[in-house]
Amino acid sequence: MTEPRVDVDAWSCPVPLRDHPVVVTGHGGGGRLSAELTRHLFLPALGDAATGVLTRLDDAAVVRAGPTRLAVSTDAFVVRPRFFPGGDLGTLAVNGTVNDVAMAGAVPCWLSAAFVLEEGLALDELHALARSLGGAARDAGVELVAGDTKVVGRGQADGLYVATTGIGLLAPDVDLGSHRVRPGDVVVVSGPIGRHGIAVLSVREGLEFGTELRSDCAALHRPVQALLRAGVDVHQLRDPTRGGVAATLNELAAAAAVGMVVTERALPVPEAVRAACGFLGLDPLEVANEGCFVALVARDDAERALEILRGDELTRDAVVIGEVVVDHPGTVVARTGIGGTRVVDLPLAEQLPRIC
Amino acid sequence: MTEPRVDVDAWSCPVPLRDHPVVVTGHGGGGRLSAELTRHLFLPALGDAATGVLTRLDDAAVVRAGPTRLAVSTDAFVVRPRFFPGGDLGTLAVNGTVNDVAMAGAVPCWLSAAFVLEEGLALDELHALARSLGGAARDAGVELVAGDTKVVGRGQADGLYVATTGIGLLAPDVDLGSHRVRPGDVVVVSGPIGRHGIAVLSVREGLEFGTELRSDCAALHRPVQALLRAGVDVHQLRDPTRGGVAATLNELAAAAAVGMVVTERALPVPEAVRAACGFLGLDPLEVANEGCFVALVARDDAERALEILRGDELTRDAVVIGEVVVDHPGTVVARTGIGGTRVVDLPLAEQLPRIC
Repeated sequence: MTEPRVDVDAWSCPVPLRDHPVVVTGHGGGGRLSAELTRHLFLPALGDAATGVLTRLDDAAVVRAGPTRLAVSTDAFVVRPRFFPGGDLGTLAVNGTVNDVAMAGAVPCWLSAAFVLEEGLALDELHALARSLGGAARDAGVELVAGDTKVVGRGQADGLYVATTGIGLLAPDVDLGSHRVRPGDVVVVSGPIGRHGIAVLSVREGLEFGTELRSDCAALHRPVQALLRAGVDVHQLRDPTRGGVAATLNELAAAAAVGMVVTERALPVPEAVRAACGFLGLDPLEVANEGCFVALVARDDAERALEILRGDELTRDAVVIGEVVVDHPGTVVARTGIGGTRVVDLPLAEQLPRIC
Repeated sequence: MTEPRVDVDAWSCPVPLRDHPVVVTGHGGGGRLSAELTRHLFLPALGDAATGVLTRLDDAAVVRAGPTRLAVSTDAFVVRPRFFPGGDLGTLAVNGTVNDVAMAGAVPCWLSAAFVLEEGLALDELHALARSLGGAARDAGVELVAGDTKVVGRGQADGLYVATTGIGLLAPDVDLGSHRVRPGDVVVVSGPIGRHGIAVLSVREGLEFGTELRSDCAALHRPVQALLRAGVDVHQLRDPTRGGVAATLNELAAAAAVGMVVTERALPVPEAVRAACGFLGLDPLEVANEGCFVALVARDDAERALEILRGDELTRDAVVIGEVVVDHPGTVVARTGIGGTRVVDLPLAEQLPRIC
């Protein structure tokens, strides 16, 4: 029905993929394969209609509706299992999208939810997840304004998927983005990293890592707004979901054409995450989070930023983990505990598929 | 992980379903089972967060962002097969959502798209569908502002699903809705009915019905805006997708607590649709459309409405098919060709699953 048009020669695909190019799990992982799918397939195919804010690939798009600026973001949620310590598909579908809107500096106001249900899904489970979703929306102060439900046959979905879209309002004086990032900015992370990915993995694989680890799944717009309302000179925000802090820092560095240096010792990695990662051979920097954010902040305002964040339960463990530098633009480097340095690469794909 | 909370005693479920309540295909059909899922499960479960515009169950929600009114709508698209005469999953995902926004009387401006891809999907097919989606957005004049891609394993989706959310701007003087519907209003349908459902069915089942029938899949906001800008006294609009004109008229009649009478002879049913429906035992009134709308218009403006609609290629076959009456509120009646009447019921479920 259409002639082949995808030129995969420049992709990072494993070799056989270039002969019979198909979607692989890594295309949904938020790493290099995801970025290639977006850059080499989606953006050229979508064409003119996408030459606006989408091409900037921020967490949320900012558009102007008359005198009002809106932030818009969408995400599909396919997490497996659907219930995990600290959250479930319902809370994730709200908080994930609310956070993307929040990272634009906007106040999330409205949410839509589209469900794809597999025939045979227990109505009790659907009810429980809808209750979680509604509860998370209420807690976040966003209104559910639009919904849709489709049903597919048995074996055509894995229980259910939800896609949410969030719309937020952006105050006139908020200006965040790559264009604001400067060498000298400090890199703040708002809380412990790696919790979501390891929590989901632990129930999925039936692993236990000593103390139970809970996902950090939470809505982050309130601490973000606290920073902005206090006039802290925040330059850019992003939540390190798929691909973890490693992917986020690489994206930020590439977009602003700056280098970044993080101090490994400063990374807030909970003991249970560190143990699990050691056991499984994972890098905590690459594990997904759903309740913390990375902020690039003017150096002079770093202390004030930490003080404000530490006043909120959700972000009380905020720390500075590194800085923006002039050197090696586009590259993120970690100072290791023993005084060396290593490159923190953009992960190729997600270590753990279907993490959100 | 949660105690059972769904009380299905009042549902139209087949008896075995009440003992082991699970999602069935009909819950996605846009008929009575869909309505029950929304009313008895989703709305109570979502709770306070959904007590706003969602509960009105219009095609799109209208919210106020400062001085600006926005119309928001979301839909998941799971059509099978993904390519059909007159359209594909990409054009459908744009036009379906654009039309829901248009039915609120708004001008669609921005669109988000969230993809769920099955591992193994050919990148060429994904590319073709993304091109269709981009082309349809460009044709409709909407900007693609946000996107997301998730990948699930083989056997966990049927190729790909797309959920789109549309945002439109509503002019200050536009006021559509049940509260405006009056006995005496005429029921206008903007073009031939039944084409989308039969076109999809024909390729899915390998059936041929003489001349090839093409889906009516198209964006309808331009003729709608032509009506509104001309000051035609339009009271309510809806596009008769899943469940067809029968479901739409029933929903409109129930929401406004009025009766409706349609004249069967006046229904614009293309010969190929009539033949296919006769052959398959389907009612053309229940077959899905993706490129026509139902308008309830003040009687005095009916002629002017038809004149304006007939000036647009998409709606040149617009006709009056019936009227709003005081009698039998909530019930839709058809005058048959031989002078009798029959009740046009809300379909129980979709005759054809995965039609959009």
